[in-house]
Amino acid sequence: MSPTSSAAIPQYLDKQRLQVDAELERILPGAGEYPPSIHQAMRHSVFAGGKRLRPILCLESGRLFNGDERSLRRLGCALELIHTYSLIHDDLPALDNDDLRRGKPSCHRVFGEATAILAGDALLTLAFEIISEPGAGIEERRLEVIHDLSHAIGTRAGMVGGQVVDLETAGHTTSAETLDYIHSAKTGSFIRAAVRSGALDAGANPEDLGRLSAYGGRIGLAFQIADDLLDVTSTREELGKSVGKDDQQHKATYPAIHGIEESRRIAVQLVHEACQALEPYGDRARRLQELAHFLIERTH
Amino acid sequence: MSPTSSAAIPQYLDKQRLQVDAELERILPGAGEYPPSIHQAMRHSVFAGGKRLRPILCLESGRLFNGDERSLRRLGCALELIHTYSLIHDDLPALDNDDLRRGKPSCHRVFGEATAILAGDALLTLAFEIISEPGAGIEERRLEVIHDLSHAIGTRAGMVGGQVVDLETAGHTTSAETLDYIHSAKTGSFIRAAVRSGALDAGANPEDLGRLSAYGGRIGLAFQIADDLLDVTSTREELGKSVGKDDQQHKATYPAIHGIEESRRIAVQLVHEACQALEPYGDRARRLQELAHFLIERTH
Repeated sequence: MSPTSSAAIPQYLDKQRLQVDAELERILPGAGEYPPSIHQAMRHSVFAGGKRLRPILCLESGRLFNGDERSLRRLGCALELIHTYSLIHDDLPALDNDDLRRGKPSCHRVFGEATAILAGDALLTLAFEIISEPGAGIEERRLEVIHDLSHAIGTRAGMVGGQVVDLETAGHTTSAETLDYIHSAKTGSFIRAAVRSGALDAGANPEDLGRLSAYGGRIGLAFQIADDLLDVTSTREELGKSVGKDDQQHKATYPAIHGIEESRRIAVQLVHEACQALEPYGDRARRLQELAHFLIERTH
Repeated sequence: MSPTSSAAIPQYLDKQRLQVDAELERILPGAGEYPPSIHQAMRHSVFAGGKRLRPILCLESGRLFNGDERSLRRLGCALELIHTYSLIHDDLPALDNDDLRRGKPSCHRVFGEATAILAGDALLTLAFEIISEPGAGIEERRLEVIHDLSHAIGTRAGMVGGQVVDLETAGHTTSAETLDYIHSAKTGSFIRAAVRSGALDAGANPEDLGRLSAYGGRIGLAFQIADDLLDVTSTREELGKSVGKDDQQHKATYPAIHGIEESRRIAVQLVHEACQALEPYGDRARRLQELAHFLIERTH
């Protein structure tokens, strides 16, 4: 029986988040560094209050194989830079046209479209600069992380591919299969890569990597289903971003296709499978299992 | 005395370009690959007829140190993907708002803004996927290439930083110092990194790398001065993109600050210095020296 999310998890997440934020502060150029506007825009979006889910997944995955803490923390921060790049570009008027993100005005609302586009570009670029920094980790592992990650955020069933199909299907009737493609490409593949990156950096063998991939793939999809559910069931204040946007934009969602109850059931089942994949590690995988449960608890 | 561009250089460039294009064809997803729109947009801009200057510089730089041809060619293609990403984003309405690029409609004119933004993102991402591909080269060298290159195209005196200052100074009086920052950051740093990348991939030692950096830095600035001159002196048909845009957008240029004749003199001097930096290699550096001359001959 896999554990449910423990009472201690919010404190644990807070502590991890603060460590990640401190490292992000060291990584990002200062707000006064030339040219200041772009660095202010990057910092605005990175420090707008994210949960740091991807860095924490990377850290916990790497800890399972006794990875180096500093190396994992830097790598985790690079993942957060990539995540923030994707949010900035998604929010642009030409894409989702969202004015609010993480409870604050989105990047282009504050800094204008040109700077927002370039800030996204710069965060993606900085992520690769951080992952490749000298002495960061073992070189061949880092190169494998870059390859794995860049594939996961690219066009071939990766993040950009998912975003394209999401945009193109808005306003049209979408099949359950297409919706699964969108979710697994747009969100799932990057979350899975975040989990894999920690394991890769820590030198996990192929069998271990397979287990972590199974875990990451399932929580990635569960997380997106939870996100769909929150868009239907939350208020703007709870969510810190515009709600009901999926419906307004006629985007396909799990609740729209499968209904709210069935969507919840699928998410619970995915989390169950994710936790099962880690059972060979016994209590050492407890945090990752708790995280899986935590991801969907928000939706109850 | 450094050689001037030989009569054979156009044929040489054609041959190199065809090799690069054949490799780009292998690298880019097919126009029918799912999701097709993004792959068509990426291909539209990559195959719109570029000179492949950065790949050719990478190839020639690596050949000087007996680098592996296939490895250099793949790396060179990654540079071209990055170059194309920067062109697509620069042309967007929020930035330079350019309808014409390399003689064809710019990406957003054909595929819309959303797809153009994502196509740029995807090309940048694919570049890192290619540089990090397994068996591509020696791992520690490839990681160094990624680090060097991502810095050169970032915000700290890199390509994005230059673009930001270029946009922000448009319409204002710009000092010669700021113009040098824009040119060296926006264009020069990436061209320098292209030259360095080939040398790094081929295992050049620090002293060699210093010479190639000196060469790359100077031709990068000379190239941008030549570009400024062409904007003043060419027709739309010759250039394959809108002309006189710099003046219309009140952008700072070398001819505007230094005058046409003085700008030409500076470019010639930079090319002379670039060629001098390679003199220790004698005749083996002839192609790189010819390329330097070729870059500014267009402006006579």
